[in-house]
Amino acid sequence: MVRNHFPYGRLVFFATGNLHKFNEARRVLAEFNIATAMIKIKISEIQDDDIENVANVSATESARRSHLPVIVEDAGLFIEVLNGFPGPYSKYVHHTIGMEGILTLLKNRQNRKACFKSAVAFNDAERAAKCFVGVVEGKITEEIRGTGSFGFDPIFEPKEKPGKTFGEMTVEEKNSISHRFRALRDFAEWYKKTYV
Amino acid sequence: MVRNHFPYGRLVFFATGNLHKFNEARRVLAEFNIATAMIKIKISEIQDDDIENVANVSATESARRSHLPVIVEDAGLFIEVLNGFPGPYSKYVHHTIGMEGILTLLKNRQNRKACFKSAVAFNDAERAAKCFVGVVEGKITEEIRGTGSFGFDPIFEPKEKPGKTFGEMTVEEKNSISHRFRALRDFAEWYKKTYV
Repeated sequence: MVRNHFPYGRLVFFATGNLHKFNEARRVLAEFNIATAMIKIKISEIQDDDIENVANVSATESARRSHLPVIVEDAGLFIEVLNGFPGPYSKYVHHTIGMEGILTLLKNRQNRKACFKSAVAFNDAERAAKCFVGVVEGKITEEIRGTGSFGFDPIFEPKEKPGKTFGEMTVEEKNSISHRFRALRDFAEWYKKTYV
Repeated sequence: MVRNHFPYGRLVFFATGNLHKFNEARRVLAEFNIATAMIKIKISEIQDDDIENVANVSATESARRSHLPVIVEDAGLFIEVLNGFPGPYSKYVHHTIGMEGILTLLKNRQNRKACFKSAVAFNDAERAAKCFVGVVEGKITEEIRGTGSFGFDPIFEPKEKPGKTFGEMTVEEKNSISHRFRALRDFAEWYKKTYV
C-alpha cells in the first residue's frame, strides 16, 4: 500500500459514454471487490493506430479535468488480412459500413484471423497513467450470429470457445475470456496491490 | 489590414508530413502571392467525424507549439451509400483496406456518389483558428484509373470533369477544381484581406 491517504479506496471512475462497456467492466471489477462508477466526460480521443496511446491520453485528460481516479478503456477489432483494419476506428467503422461491410471485405477470403484488443488506462489525477492490454484471438465468421453484446461481437468467434460468437454468449461467458476482461483483471490486481 | 505589425506578411507555415499535400497547397497559394513553408510538428489529431474540428484542434495546437502562423489541412472522402465512410479516417483506411477495399464495398452498388472535403484551418498563434471548407462532388469509379496524385484520387471522378479521375489529371488540372483548392482559395482571399 503506497498511499494510504488515497481517498477513494475501492472506488474507481470509468469514463465512457457506452453503457454496455461500463456494465461489462463493473461486473469484472466487482469480482475483485472494486466498485465502479460511470462518469461521462466529453474529451476528444486522439487518432492513433495504437489503442494504448489513445487510452492513455484519454485517461490523463479525464483525470486532469475531473480530479478523480479514472479508468478509460479503448478497444478494437484487428483483422489480419486487412492489415489490422478496423483497429482503433472500430466504432466509426461499425456505425458506417457495419458488420455487413466487414463480411463483404472478407468474402471468399481464406484467412479470417482476427483479434480483439482492449487497453485499460488508469490515471489517479496525480501520477502518470498506467495501462494494461488484453487480447483475445479468434476469427471472423461467415455470417452474423447472435444479438448479445455490442459492436462486432456477432461476427467474432474466439479460439478458446469455438462454435460460438461473442454475440451468442451471455455477459458472464464473454467476460470469462474477453480482451476487456483480461485487461481489467490485470488492472484490478495491480490496483489492489498499489492502492487498497 | 488589421495587424500591420504582423511579422510574417506573405509567409504561412503548412504543418503536414505529406509532401504531396504540401506541394498542392504551395502551388495554389503561390497564385495568390502567398509563400508557404512546410513544417513538421508531431501532434495528435483528434478522432472526430467532422474534419473541421480535426483541423481546428490541430491548427491551434501547432500554432501554440511553434509560435508561428500555421495552416493545417484535413481532408476525407465521404461515400454516400457507406454513410460517409471512410470520411475523417481516409488515410488509415487507405493504408489498410486500400482502394481495392472501397471497390469491394461498392461492388454491384448503383449509388456511387461521393465527395471529397477539405478543411483548411489557420491559427496565427495569437487568435482563434479560422477554418475554410472546400467540397468537390463526384462518384467512385468501377476500377482504379491513373497513378497521379495520392490517396483515393484514382477511384474518384469529379462531376465537373466526367470521364477522368483525379489520378488521371495533372496537378494543375486537379488544382483547378479540387476540394483542397477551394478551401485554400477561400483561405487565401481572407488572409490577404486580413493580414497583408
